[in-house]
Amino acid sequence: MSAARPYLVGLVGTGVTPSLTPAMHMVEARALGIDYLYRTIDLTTLGLAPDQLPDILAWARRFGFDALNITHPCKRLVVEYLDHIDPLAQALGSVNTVLFTDDGLIGHNTDTTGFETAFRSGLPGAPVDRVVLLGAGGAGSAVADALLRVGAKMLTVVDLDLGRAEELATDLAGRHAAEVDFAAPDALPELLRTSSGLVHCTPTGMKEHPGMPFAAELLRPELWVADIVYRPLDTALLQAAREAGCETLDGGRMAVYQAVDALRLITGRHPDPERMIRHFHDLVTPREVLT
Amino acid sequence: MSAARPYLVGLVGTGVTPSLTPAMHMVEARALGIDYLYRTIDLTTLGLAPDQLPDILAWARRFGFDALNITHPCKRLVVEYLDHIDPLAQALGSVNTVLFTDDGLIGHNTDTTGFETAFRSGLPGAPVDRVVLLGAGGAGSAVADALLRVGAKMLTVVDLDLGRAEELATDLAGRHAAEVDFAAPDALPELLRTSSGLVHCTPTGMKEHPGMPFAAELLRPELWVADIVYRPLDTALLQAAREAGCETLDGGRMAVYQAVDALRLITGRHPDPERMIRHFHDLVTPREVLT
Repeated sequence: MSAARPYLVGLVGTGVTPSLTPAMHMVEARALGIDYLYRTIDLTTLGLAPDQLPDILAWARRFGFDALNITHPCKRLVVEYLDHIDPLAQALGSVNTVLFTDDGLIGHNTDTTGFETAFRSGLPGAPVDRVVLLGAGGAGSAVADALLRVGAKMLTVVDLDLGRAEELATDLAGRHAAEVDFAAPDALPELLRTSSGLVHCTPTGMKEHPGMPFAAELLRPELWVADIVYRPLDTALLQAAREAGCETLDGGRMAVYQAVDALRLITGRHPDPERMIRHFHDLVTPREVLT
Repeated sequence: MSAARPYLVGLVGTGVTPSLTPAMHMVEARALGIDYLYRTIDLTTLGLAPDQLPDILAWARRFGFDALNITHPCKRLVVEYLDHIDPLAQALGSVNTVLFTDDGLIGHNTDTTGFETAFRSGLPGAPVDRVVLLGAGGAGSAVADALLRVGAKMLTVVDLDLGRAEELATDLAGRHAAEVDFAAPDALPELLRTSSGLVHCTPTGMKEHPGMPFAAELLRPELWVADIVYRPLDTALLQAAREAGCETLDGGRMAVYQAVDALRLITGRHPDPERMIRHFHDLVTPREVLT
């Protein structure tokens, strides 16, 4: 045992039992010489409702948890129970990491910082004059803020739910000095003809929702394509984008960097992102079964 | 990280923050190659009442605790919230270890098994024809059951609170084929003249309650003396007993064996008692401060 008090961390959300985040944190903490235990608190299997979040936070604090990661459907709900909130998370209105400190509960959002670092490191120098964001949900919202922080001049939010797209675009335009508009998916042919890049933030392409979010014919080599889906890591969209000659960024890098940032906030130590990416690839790559 | 799921364990009771049990469990688990995190859940510092025990158990289960150790004032209270209880703990009506299993909550009492092993290993072959138990509280009760299991033929329960002494004696006599009576401390001169051994189970001799529980003149070389106080390990009573030529057993061995048994129940692995005793001695021995 290392001399320091071991860390105890949890992940709160619905359906979080198969999450890779506990393994990512624990293996990297071990590599850093930190005693670190990470538990899932799966609202689905426990039969807990999101409105029991105040109880979850109070009991986690009593039981000596150092931090909780928070995911769907609690990222916005949790904000009102915090004592302090990081400005980026405050602006976004969404928190995925809660630190239990002597000064109370402090909220951060490492989805948005994680995508920012993933983008800067995975697509360095990619032009962001005109970017299309496909999917205006919670993930899309965190990604949009990151895109505007890395300098996107014009961002178009596309969603089947046009009201949701408009709401996000209005919110973003009010907080960032950039041009933000919104559109329905039928505008994609026109949008992708003139854009520098696209970030895909819908569930399409996940193992449970296979397929392409739009026709592969719309892709062209000048467009970079980022996907936030990471199960599988190599989605139909990314395959089509590579075939079309696009630069691509897979969802693994955002998944890893949100964990890098959370682990750093929780422990004050500096995780090794490349080691965490290698471990993440091990976790998501189907293995031959030895018989 | 070892491949297996790491263990998460807690200690529930009032004033448990300075307990040595977390360190004992974690260091031995580490030596066994087990990832193991042990947290104190101190009702005093958390401002929790013992009647919140059902909530504590429910939330500990939800947060993925594998087990809780339970101490004062919850050892009897906890019994009614269990799904199963070990026969020794059931007979005693007191539980200090709760396992969270797929079959529900299972209660054990490793105070009584711990004292039994401590006695068998620390005072091997000591005669138990007539034994005096000084102190009829929770610890005394667990020790009494162990003494009767190792074959005590006649046991006298001595307590300043004569009603408490009588209650324990009556309970013990009803459950064991041995002669059990009770007495007030003024009977000690007579009792110790004819007894084979004495177990001391009051707080006297602890750092906060220094001193002797009775006059040193009552000790004689034929008497063995066991103390369950372990802070300090070498109490005034044990010092006087050694000076009087008595065989002695310090409280550290019971403290260690209750942890040995709990760790074994929780993990299914076999802790090394001698290694745990050495570590325990390191924990309780004041160290020179390096300057």
